[in-house]
Amino acid sequence: MKGATIWFTGLPCSGKTTIADRVYNILKEKGYRVERLDGDIIRKSPISRDLGFSKEDRRKNLERVAFIAKLLSRNDVIVLATFVSPYNDIRRDIRDIIGADRFHLIWTRCPVEVCIERDVKGMYKKALAGEIKNFTGVDDPFEEPTDPPADLILDTDKEEVEESVEKVLAFMKGRGIID
Amino acid sequence: MKGATIWFTGLPCSGKTTIADRVYNILKEKGYRVERLDGDIIRKSPISRDLGFSKEDRRKNLERVAFIAKLLSRNDVIVLATFVSPYNDIRRDIRDIIGADRFHLIWTRCPVEVCIERDVKGMYKKALAGEIKNFTGVDDPFEEPTDPPADLILDTDKEEVEESVEKVLAFMKGRGIID
Repeated sequence: MKGATIWFTGLPCSGKTTIADRVYNILKEKGYRVERLDGDIIRKSPISRDLGFSKEDRRKNLERVAFIAKLLSRNDVIVLATFVSPYNDIRRDIRDIIGADRFHLIWTRCPVEVCIERDVKGMYKKALAGEIKNFTGVDDPFEEPTDPPADLILDTDKEEVEESVEKVLAFMKGRGIID
Repeated sequence: MKGATIWFTGLPCSGKTTIADRVYNILKEKGYRVERLDGDIIRKSPISRDLGFSKEDRRKNLERVAFIAKLLSRNDVIVLATFVSPYNDIRRDIRDIIGADRFHLIWTRCPVEVCIERDVKGMYKKALAGEIKNFTGVDDPFEEPTDPPADLILDTDKEEVEESVEKVLAFMKGRGIID
């Protein structure tokens, strides 16, 4: 194995966490050193619990996560990071912090209508009611990954979770990250 | 090997960085996964570059470092962390964040007069002239490690650097961190 950061980008409720958690469990069971980084973990931790959700604070949060992902992946740990990370420029920053050779971008592509229907945490409902501002997919854009482009696209409105998981594992094998 | 955090505490210029850098080079050369965390690295990074040197900000800085040390050491990385970390209560917090089983405290014990004489970066001079406030050893106390106690004490005013380095390596062997 070699260390790497698999960075999942996509709309809220597009499937990032579900797929990454499943991949995590499979790799962990096989004995890989693997770490999950996501908003729920990081924003409750000393790393980012002082940050809010302004554009500036969201950027700071992602840069801190990227720095941690760099330290882990250069020490042979596989990092599965799941963050909306909606802009090309922030994804470029993340790639540059981690290092392009260890950064792999996966896009969970899913129409916003499908995400709104899933609405796991009821956040879209609040955003559509105007109770939350700057919510990606509602009143803040999700820029499709073009620069850097996605290394792998998962069409989570069409694929079953297990299908997406298999694609991620095959991708990681292809890149020599796992055996 | 197993992951662990070796946390060096001690006055500015008491030898933390010199010793940890030397240990790092030796372990790196032997092929260990090892990472250095210190103020110069972390305060220039996205992790803490927004922090100042107030008591509150120093605490935040150390808690962020401890969180990163936890992630690294639970993934079989050896972390060599060098921070003044002058109070027992903050060292307790650090231990609790990392987990007591992976936290090892080394105290570079050196009389402040000797540290002032060394004054590698001219910081003591500035603090003594009143240009820097809350400088440990001048107008802010260094609490001797009692709770938690130091797992290893290095008397850096009496020992040569290589002697201290050998003690650290022997300590790590004794704890099963290295072979």
